[in-house]
Formats: sequence, structure tokens, C-alpha cells
Amino acid sequence: MSDERLDVPELQRRLREFAAARDWGRYHTPKNLVAALSVEASELLEIFQWLTPEQAAAVMDDPARAHRVEDEVADVLAYLLQFCSVLGVDPLEALAAKIERNELRFPAGRTPPLDGS
Amino acid sequence: MSDERLDVPELQRRLREFAAARDWGRYHTPKNLVAALSVEASELLEIFQWLTPEQAAAVMDDPARAHRVEDEVADVLAYLLQFCSVLGVDPLEALAAKIERNELRFPAGRTPPLDGS
Amino acid sequence: MSDERLDVPELQRRLREFAAARDWGRYHTPKNLVAALSVEASELLEIFQWLTPEQAAAVMDDPARAHRVEDEVADVLAYLLQFCSVLGVDPLEALAAKIERNELRFPAGRTPPLDGS
Amino acid sequence: MSDERLDVPELQRRLREFAAARDWGRYHTPKNLVAALSVEASELLEIFQWLTPEQAAAVMDDPARAHRVEDEVADVLAYLLQFCSVLGVDPLEALAAKIERNELRFPAGRTPPLDGS
Repeated sequence: MSDERLDVPELQRRLREFAAARDWGRYHTPKNLVAALSVEASELLEIFQWLTPEQAAAVMDDPARAHRVEDEVADVLAYLLQFCSVLGVDPLEALAAKIERNELRFPAGRTPPLDGS
Repeated sequence: MSDERLDVPELQRRLREFAAARDWGRYHTPKNLVAALSVEASELLEIFQWLTPEQAAAVMDDPARAHRVEDEVADVLAYLLQFCSVLGVDPLEALAAKIERNELRFPAGRTPPLDGS
Repeated sequence: MSDERLDVPELQRRLREFAAARDWGRYHTPKNLVAALSVEASELLEIFQWLTPEQAAAVMDDPARAHRVEDEVADVLAYLLQFCSVLGVDPLEALAAKIERNELRFPAGRTPPLDGS
Repeated sequence: MSDERLDVPELQRRLREFAAARDWGRYHTPKNLVAALSVEASELLEIFQWLTPEQAAAVMDDPARAHRVEDEVADVLAYLLQFCSVLGVDPLEALAAKIERNELRFPAGRTPPLDGS
């Protein structure tokens, strides 16, 4: 691992270089990237689909499964960042703004449980 | 918008505080969070499902659609970061490691097109 | 409810008429229909995402949730059948053939558990 | 292929027998089955994710891809039918009722295009 700075803009730069060097930019339309993002999110879900909640909580104890989880997390983040690059969306700003909206929408102490019970 | 530092660890901290203040931590099991991640990725896909590639490329020109895209990007990133917090995965390290593996797996100049043509 | 025959070919016929009457056929490309299918499957998953296994098993006891489940099942089946109509795939034959292949691939009595334990 | 009747109730019966013979019924909770359904729908989407609309429309011309499409269609239908069996939902009735509701909700001749244009 290099000691380069590791943050979102740097990773977006590396992903752009990677795609450009393989002439993959022509596949990276917004519609294709969002389809790929949803496919990768499902591949992460697939690891958990037959596990009980208890088995799921212990998934990182098994090295092979832990590696698979990290690999799929990387794929989800990669397509999310590439989608954002192509459309000019700042994902960190978008999330910060959403958290601020949610603070108003779901006031602490007066918000019902998520399961509707 | 505050002038606080805006990076992934800071957003993960804010998301943890937000969930803790609403007693939502009990819903945030790995299996539930990965299901929610895949649901939000599909909500982002839904915006694009009937659009032609050309309409999809112009999606940010329409302010209402642009806001919806940013909102769903925020939701995908929120659940991805919360999933990583709960399982102790560093998403930026995971992506940096994956890019390095892919440099070896798909050598530039010798990689077939993605569409198999 | 009419007393018309209710089977897959008949439902495919009604779906084709419905789309044709609204000039929606131009949206119903294979790529768009499969994106819509995956979006609807996620909307069905969304109903269950925060529920415990016990709450999920009792989901049909609540009339509002039961209706939502039936509504999303209908949407998943609708897009699956329309996708199959457009590509000329017979979904019932495809499933019957798959079950026969799986009988050979996963012999009864010698197949490990799905959770890998 | 046998000359047995091929319809949805018969396929649901075969799927139940298949799962029972492998002791897989304990994995087939509603929450697990709906997760598996959404994962399989994404695997079907994955076949199309990098294709242009034109390539996607010709997907059945390639025998290997055609087989993969039929295989994933079978998986989606299998999990949908198993999900319905476990919860006591009739998928054909659900779809017939939905088509009738949609006839009222989207009147032919007065419904805007799906892409919002």
C-alpha cells in the first residue's frame, strides 16, 4: 500500500485513470453505472441472504467471507463514485445535506420505530 | 452548511450519532443495512429505468430530478458507511486495495471490452 | 373479478394489451424491463428490511402490509412476464428445466447447508 | 421433458418438494426469500448492464447469453413462487387484480409518457 493520501476525490481520480486506460469510458454512462451499482449492492446482499441475524453479525470472523465483504464494498463504492463523477454530484456534500434534512424530518425523541410496531 | 471537515470518517461519526439519538441502532444489523443499501441503489436506478441513454446523460439539467439523484446518492452512501461502521470495514482502504488488484487482473491494453463483443 | 381463465399466457396477453393501449411499448425494451424488474423486487424487499425474522413471518396478519406485499408481487411478476414476452422466453419452461438441472446438481441427502456452516 | 402439466401451482409443488428433500425449508423464511429474489433479479440485470439498447434487444441471438437469460429468469420465478407459497399469496390473482386497478389509475389515451417528458 502506498502512503498516498486516501480520500474520496483521490479515489475518484484513480478510478477515472483506470477506466480511461482500458477504454471503458464509453460503457460508463449514468444509466449503465447505476445498473452496475445496484448489481454490486445485490452481490453484497447475496453474502448475507441465507444467514441468521447472528451469523450475519459474525461474518467478519471468517477470513474468506471477510475478504468477500470487503471486495463487494469496494465494488459498490467504485460504481457510486464513478456515477457521481460522470454526473458531477459531490457524494459527501449530498450526504451531509441529507443528514441535515433528516435532523428536521425525524426529530430525536419523537420519531416512531422503523418497523412500524 | 457548516464549515466542519467533510470526509468519510466524519460522516460515519454523524451517522452513528443520528441513529443513536433515535434508538435506531437495534435495526442496524449488518443484514438489515445491506438490504437497505440494495433498496436505495434500486431507488437510484428507478430514476433512470425508462430513460434513453441520451435522456439519462442529461438528468442533472432538470432541477427536480437532480435533487432526487443527489438524495438517493446520499441514501446509498449513508447505508454503505453504516454497514462498514457496524462490521469494522474501511471502505476507502477496501477500494484502494481493489483498484490495485484490478490493475493486475485487467492489464491496460490487453483487456477485452466489457460487452463481450 | 371476471371468471376468465387465469394463467401465465393469459396474463401476458393482458399486459401486452395494457401497454399497447398507452403507447408504452417503446419503453419496454429488454434492458428497461429488467431494470424495472429489479427495482420492483427491491420494493418488495423494502417492506421487510427492518423486520425481525419473526415480524417478517407475520407480515400478512396486517391488512395494510398484506396489500402492499400483494401489490409488489404483482409488479415483480408483471415485469418478469413482459420481459419474457419481449425476448420470447417461456418462463414456466425455463423454471421446469432449471428444477431438472438442480435435481442433478444438488443431490438430495448429499447437499451441504446453504449458509455454509 | 415430461409431459406433465406445466403451470404455476404445479411448479410451486415441485419447488416445495425440492426444498423439503434437501432440508432447505429452514432457510426459506419470507425475509430470506425476498432477499434472494432481489439478488436474482440483479443477476438478470447484470447480463444487460454494459449493453447498448440495440445489443440488449439481440441478446437471445447468442446461445450462451440466451441460456444465461433463461437460467436467471428461472431463478427469479423460483424465488417469487417460493416467497408466495410461504406467505400464502396467489401471484396470478395478485397480478390480475393489479391490472384491473391500473386500468382505472392510468386511463388509456390520457396517461403521460413514462419518462416524464
